[in-house]
Amino acid sequence: MDGIDKTDRKAINFSEKLERISDLWQPRVIAEMNDYQFKLVRIEGDFVWHDHPETDETFIVLEGVLRIDFRDGAVQIGPGEMFVVPKGVEHKPFAENEVRLLLIEPRGVLNTGHAGGNRTAQNDRWV
Amino acid sequence: MDGIDKTDRKAINFSEKLERISDLWQPRVIAEMNDYQFKLVRIEGDFVWHDHPETDETFIVLEGVLRIDFRDGAVQIGPGEMFVVPKGVEHKPFAENEVRLLLIEPRGVLNTGHAGGNRTAQNDRWV
Repeated sequence: MDGIDKTDRKAINFSEKLERISDLWQPRVIAEMNDYQFKLVRIEGDFVWHDHPETDETFIVLEGVLRIDFRDGAVQIGPGEMFVVPKGVEHKPFAENEVRLLLIEPRGVLNTGHAGGNRTAQNDRWV
Repeated sequence: MDGIDKTDRKAINFSEKLERISDLWQPRVIAEMNDYQFKLVRIEGDFVWHDHPETDETFIVLEGVLRIDFRDGAVQIGPGEMFVVPKGVEHKPFAENEVRLLLIEPRGVLNTGHAGGNRTAQNDRWV
């Protein structure tokens, strides 16, 4: 049985962590569960079309209203709401005003999937 | 590429789902991400000591203040906060007043781990 270091026994507060993120579209890891990561990210504006062929991706909105566009529709996700984008489905997040959200996905997933390009954020940065 | 049925393109609202849960300590599945499940649960009072030898378990508090006791300490988790209990670590959730929370763990995990007993909830119930 693994012990937990008592000093790690502190809840992770989303607002406190978000205050320490100043850049947009740069996800920061706040916790891991098995081989999955929880990432906070602030976004505003348009992103690139991409998909994640190997995994579903979960969006939980903390502040603001996120729209995720699909090739044949869209979904709106507000505070206290979540949505799981199935693996392999092309999507494009959009935030008319700033959105703060929690992403959950396996360790190693890039924000742009396999689309690449200059919107690809550095992976595995913690806050 | 898997398509999504457009009719499934709706955000999952935690409050709306919670309104449909009337019993305590009975987790209800609201979404799946790969082989993981998101479950909402209302709890109040004391639970049993248990652990999950095969997996970490994530608690995200939506309302109320959750205390998780460990054999050598405790953590308090309030609204907008999360905590990951590492696999194999004995824990006992406690809620002095009602707490509404989101659990994330692999499909098939029982609420009492391998402790069993009459607090074990039926698994894989959706709301």
